[in-house]
Amino acid sequence: MDLDELRGALSEGALTTDPATVESYRRDWTQSEAAGMPLGVVRAGSADDVVATVRWAAARGVPVVPRGAGSGLSGGSCAVEGCIVLSLDRMRAIEIDVATRTAVVEPGAFNAEVKAAAAEQGLWYPPDPASFEICSIGGNIATNAGGLCCVKYGVTTDYVLGLDVVLADGTLVRLGGKRVKDVAGLSLLKLFVGSEGTLGIVTRAVLRLVPAQPPAATLVATFPTVEAAARAVVEVGRTLRPSMMELMDNASINAVEDYQAMGLDRAAGALLLCQSDAPGAARAQEIELIRAACESVGAKECFVTDDPAEGEMFAAARRAAFPAIERLGALMLEDVGVPVPQLPELLTGITAIAERHDVQIPTVAHAGDGNTHPIILYPRGDEAAKERAAEAFVEVMHLAIRLGGTITGEHGIGRLKRAALPDQLGPDVMALTHRIKDALDPQGILNPGAAF
Amino acid sequence: MDLDELRGALSEGALTTDPATVESYRRDWTQSEAAGMPLGVVRAGSADDVVATVRWAAARGVPVVPRGAGSGLSGGSCAVEGCIVLSLDRMRAIEIDVATRTAVVEPGAFNAEVKAAAAEQGLWYPPDPASFEICSIGGNIATNAGGLCCVKYGVTTDYVLGLDVVLADGTLVRLGGKRVKDVAGLSLLKLFVGSEGTLGIVTRAVLRLVPAQPPAATLVATFPTVEAAARAVVEVGRTLRPSMMELMDNASINAVEDYQAMGLDRAAGALLLCQSDAPGAARAQEIELIRAACESVGAKECFVTDDPAEGEMFAAARRAAFPAIERLGALMLEDVGVPVPQLPELLTGITAIAERHDVQIPTVAHAGDGNTHPIILYPRGDEAAKERAAEAFVEVMHLAIRLGGTITGEHGIGRLKRAALPDQLGPDVMALTHRIKDALDPQGILNPGAAF
Ligand SMILES: Cc1cc2nc3c(=O)[nH]c(=O)nc-3n(C[C@H](O)[C@H](O)[C@H](O)COP(=O)(O)OP(=O)(O)OC[C@H]3O[C@@H](n4cnc5c(N)ncnc54)[C@H](O)[C@@H]3O)c2cc1C
Ligand SMILES: Cc1cc2nc3c(=O)[nH]c(=O)nc-3n(C[C@H](O)[C@H](O)[C@H](O)COP(=O)(O)OP(=O)(O)OC[C@H]3O[C@@H](n4cnc5c(N)ncnc54)[C@H](O)[C@@H]3O)c2cc1C
Repeated sequence: MDLDELRGALSEGALTTDPATVESYRRDWTQSEAAGMPLGVVRAGSADDVVATVRWAAARGVPVVPRGAGSGLSGGSCAVEGCIVLSLDRMRAIEIDVATRTAVVEPGAFNAEVKAAAAEQGLWYPPDPASFEICSIGGNIATNAGGLCCVKYGVTTDYVLGLDVVLADGTLVRLGGKRVKDVAGLSLLKLFVGSEGTLGIVTRAVLRLVPAQPPAATLVATFPTVEAAARAVVEVGRTLRPSMMELMDNASINAVEDYQAMGLDRAAGALLLCQSDAPGAARAQEIELIRAACESVGAKECFVTDDPAEGEMFAAARRAAFPAIERLGALMLEDVGVPVPQLPELLTGITAIAERHDVQIPTVAHAGDGNTHPIILYPRGDEAAKERAAEAFVEVMHLAIRLGGTITGEHGIGRLKRAALPDQLGPDVMALTHRIKDALDPQGILNPGAAF
Repeated sequence: MDLDELRGALSEGALTTDPATVESYRRDWTQSEAAGMPLGVVRAGSADDVVATVRWAAARGVPVVPRGAGSGLSGGSCAVEGCIVLSLDRMRAIEIDVATRTAVVEPGAFNAEVKAAAAEQGLWYPPDPASFEICSIGGNIATNAGGLCCVKYGVTTDYVLGLDVVLADGTLVRLGGKRVKDVAGLSLLKLFVGSEGTLGIVTRAVLRLVPAQPPAATLVATFPTVEAAARAVVEVGRTLRPSMMELMDNASINAVEDYQAMGLDRAAGALLLCQSDAPGAARAQEIELIRAACESVGAKECFVTDDPAEGEMFAAARRAAFPAIERLGALMLEDVGVPVPQLPELLTGITAIAERHDVQIPTVAHAGDGNTHPIILYPRGDEAAKERAAEAFVEVMHLAIRLGGTITGEHGIGRLKRAALPDQLGPDVMALTHRIKDALDPQGILNPGAAF
């Protein structure tokens, strides 16, 4: 394919076909072997570049794979053969509007950069995927990213007030804005959130900010078993709203300790990491109620600290779980979620699946939301183990569906979980999905093969 | 049209063509003279009746107008000529699931009934339109209803976890469920929220509940002018999160006092009604900070009470504004919203419009959200005044658009504001809207003429 016309339509240097650069934009965090070879990479300098790229691609039926920071865990930004990878990583302007408590951001800005810019003004952008230092706001919006504080503060879609989106024919539409309430017309804004780049490309977002979060107190409770920890989550959820409620099982505790010693209890069956950011004296009260709930279902030990720095150390330990476990072998990462009361059954079911297929499945979880990350681990290069892992991967998803849950709580379907989506949604919802996709992208050029 | 086949497909007595009954289901709160004459009214007893009605209608190209409790303020459930009015008012089962903190409700259940059922279990369903005692959850979902506590707790869409929806061809799809996080597939759930019955008919909803709201402290601040009150709203919004922040101007204060004396200050240019439900001692603190903000921009007087019953009395006064003003003449009700910092400019602009067109425009507002209800009032039967009112109505909407706002913050476009929608959204977003409508309802039988 002749790329000169595309090059001519773009800002200087936006298109690159240099093999090393292309290679580095071909895959997301999954490092998928199945990634195709792109024609080239467009690193858009502005919305105009995005419009020009999509127009060019639409005229030729060339697939476009949007890409943020490539931290995705489901292969959503992995290239397909003969596509243009459309990277937003150069578009990272951030503007904080204190009066409306909003941030107007370009999609390539990292989540952490938005948080920092807001913090300078005494404001806070809550959504906090564990990857917040290496993922983009555009990717967060496209996957409707969750995170640690979401149990109290909600997920990305709850903070999106406005979007500029380039549609599959190159039209740029502006949806929503700085007003907090708006019901004029269909709720199109929310349709694009979580659409994984299959309906349009986000070139600008208006994000809702809130006043800075009060400092949090932290409780770390250890339990003899994952199941006991899960029961504590259910117990707490009945009456309390902690601002964080994360779970680590024994295997992930030990992986983190091996990676960077944090003083976690290596003997614990599981630990819960809870925070309260209730104002004033209510904070200590809430922590005490969480402690009581944990002890009522058999917590071995509870450690409490009022020191935000110490609390953040534990949160960092939790966030280190993926890199720590990644060193131990090849892995397949789950993201299944269930209604909170089904959490104990999900976790015991996962243990049984691990045993049945002779694989390890260390698990961390945004437990307060019922969203878990079982990590199916097998020795690199062991083909038989890889097959067993793949079987376990599918079984865990089906277990979640059977428990009234979902195969993905926050990472997205991407290219990894596509096969299982119809099992969750059923034929009618799949048909509805395709009707919308066909209406918005009749040629199917936007991120083909991702999501559905 | 022969209705026997429809009657045969429905449960006993669901279809009625009795003129008096039909008449009582023809219009919503607007009492629109433009309402058409329906073929009949189906009062569905179950989702099966809804499916049967839509199938029958789809086969014949007969329009279907869904109807909740008919409290809508934009003509959304007003009948069109030759339609079937599909009322959900008999489907009102409510089931509270304490373990998942959800309510599974049929669409006809009143908002107040869901709140009451949740309260019995120590839980709370936050969205609280002023009409909560006379509007249905289905109508709330179809309009993405707001209310008084939304300034802190968000609007209806933030509480919808699952929906059963009957599509335009009679297919019933189940979207979402009791899990709090789920990004599998497109965000279809949120697309149906706020779609005003144009994309599908809601037959069941899973709603997120939260632990019971702590008792609130209340502050009533009076101001010399609406503009000063609006500036106080901006000031408070910079750092605080009150759980209520309502505004009444002088005319609405006096209308309410005439309707049922509540002891409001008839001389005030405007009053703000604020609540804090922060836990423990933080509540009194927050109220003091709100008071300081109000006084810093010239509040005349601040009255504070810790007594929830007294606070509720003031909230009831605020909610009485519509019925109170309705007695004073014919009216056209606005629902415009702007980013909060534009609130003073919006309110002074409205005063100018009232003067220019020689109409009265008493105004109440969910001020903390920038969402206002200017009520254009004119003498019943005065055709010239009616024309002036209609001009003012359009001008207020254009003012809101010019200030970066919306023509409807919570009531929906319905049939009243349809003409103005393209002015807000522009041709590209309108085209996108129609593409989705055409994909989901190619015959256009679902609530034709509403929303867009
Ligand atoms: C260590 C680690 C921890 C993580 N923890 C979490 C967590 O706690 N919660 C969570 O939700 N996720 C987590 N993730 C997953 C990942 O970080 C998120 O999915 C993130 O939102 C992806 O952002 P990105 O910019 O890297 O997007 P990419 O990986 O580049 O892309 C992700 C998807 O978004 C699309 N996309 C990207 N930008 C745009 C755009 N501008 N317009 C349209 N589509 C676009 C892509 O096509 C792709 O489908 C974690 C990842 C890692 C590596
Ligand atoms: C005094 C008063 C105060 C009000 N205050 C507020 C307020 O504070 N905030 C606010 O948001 N609104 C307010 N409203 C407006 C109104 O109560 C809301 O719009 C409410 O959500 C409508 O609910 P309903 O059941 O009466 O719906 P209806 O009026 O019957 O219908 C409203 C729309 O929803 C559609 N619809 C209804 N049920 C379904 C269903 N099951 N499936 C699909 N579509 C359906 C209809 O077709 C129509 O388009 C107020 C109204 C009054 C009279």
